[in-house]
Amino acid sequence: MHYFYSIDISGEFMMLSKEESEHCVRVMRHREGDVVRVTDGRGRLAEAVVAMADPKKCLLEIRQEITGSIPAHNGLQLAVAPTKNADRMEWLLEKSIEIGVCSITFLQCRHSERTRLNMERLQRLSVAALKQSQTTWLPELKMMEFAEFIRQNENILADKFIAWCDENNQRQLTDMPRHHHEMILLVGPEGDFSDEEVAMARHSGYVEVKLGDRRLRTETAGLYGCFAAAISKPLPS
Amino acid sequence: MHYFYSIDISGEFMMLSKEESEHCVRVMRHREGDVVRVTDGRGRLAEAVVAMADPKKCLLEIRQEITGSIPAHNGLQLAVAPTKNADRMEWLLEKSIEIGVCSITFLQCRHSERTRLNMERLQRLSVAALKQSQTTWLPELKMMEFAEFIRQNENILADKFIAWCDENNQRQLTDMPRHHHEMILLVGPEGDFSDEEVAMARHSGYVEVKLGDRRLRTETAGLYGCFAAAISKPLPS
Repeated sequence: MHYFYSIDISGEFMMLSKEESEHCVRVMRHREGDVVRVTDGRGRLAEAVVAMADPKKCLLEIRQEITGSIPAHNGLQLAVAPTKNADRMEWLLEKSIEIGVCSITFLQCRHSERTRLNMERLQRLSVAALKQSQTTWLPELKMMEFAEFIRQNENILADKFIAWCDENNQRQLTDMPRHHHEMILLVGPEGDFSDEEVAMARHSGYVEVKLGDRRLRTETAGLYGCFAAAISKPLPS
Repeated sequence: MHYFYSIDISGEFMMLSKEESEHCVRVMRHREGDVVRVTDGRGRLAEAVVAMADPKKCLLEIRQEITGSIPAHNGLQLAVAPTKNADRMEWLLEKSIEIGVCSITFLQCRHSERTRLNMERLQRLSVAALKQSQTTWLPELKMMEFAEFIRQNENILADKFIAWCDENNQRQLTDMPRHHHEMILLVGPEGDFSDEEVAMARHSGYVEVKLGDRRLRTETAGLYGCFAAAISKPLPS
């Protein structure tokens, strides 16, 4: 069944956005009476019937809310330095949404190869990925300075890790005990984090971890984090 | 340092293939005296010096073998039904080589959406991925009927799993004990395996497992298997 996205799916009737109406009526060719699914990207999913197949203002009648058994996201707050090649960030975005990432922050690091991203395009791709993978969580996307990210998450209760390629560091992310439902993972640029950035993270309670035994590309490391968060279970608190 | 690939890196001198010579001399513009690295895709890596920078027949002088601490591959024999979209298989190929897959077999299943692949192109992409991720294992690529794959691996000592979306099956791949260094994972097409195929696998000792709690796309499921094989440690035999 086709999925659509709308910020608000409360109430008996709801109007799809211009883009979603276009997708529902023009692209998917839905007509009055067709049954579709709509998610708010915040964990809610509902079955709805097309009440008015207007390609600009498609009206849906909510039939019933569908409560899934799977958590909407895996609790991972992924913070990753964008790669030079934007495609690789876009596939990380698509895949991490499919696996169930909670939020993605693109970090501006000392050694970042790319300091600007087309956030509007990434937002559009997120919605597409959300619908395609038929999940119900649209991760919040942000772009932020490394230091600012550390500061903003200073007091957040979460298991905090920084992926850092250091010979002396033998702790594997997948071996680390989990204490909170939220996990923050910092993944650096191809040139890795600067010593100052690692020191700053360490001082803020981030534990240095390895992501397997190989040196992974930035986007692969990010995906590794998504799988690790999905696999590792937090200790009962 | 740049990586190159050659089937045979034994002996004091070696000649790169036409493609590799082109890549080394024309693309990377290496000249006599430049130091490069060359792998045989079978776990061996050597440091070499360009002895003759001929764009068709580049001669390398092997300096010394480099023995890495990381195993060349993670023991995973991945058998996956090709997706309709070839790009997604190529992506899986690139990523699984980066993570360290042992071999990849493209399965022709009852519900396969694609029964033919450009294996020559996939071979070329494998070599490119091998060099780009600077790993030393070039996985064997095969295309095979589902039943033939099961038959050929009947007597191979390995932990055998089939990823199968069944409500009643709650076993997670990442929770399964490992007994062998080799792991075989079967990943089905978008339309999933047929009941006959699942029965055949079960009869041949494959354990039905889930790959997390979400229904993943075929290529994402394949990558999940690569990460799981890298993470899970075989019991000491």
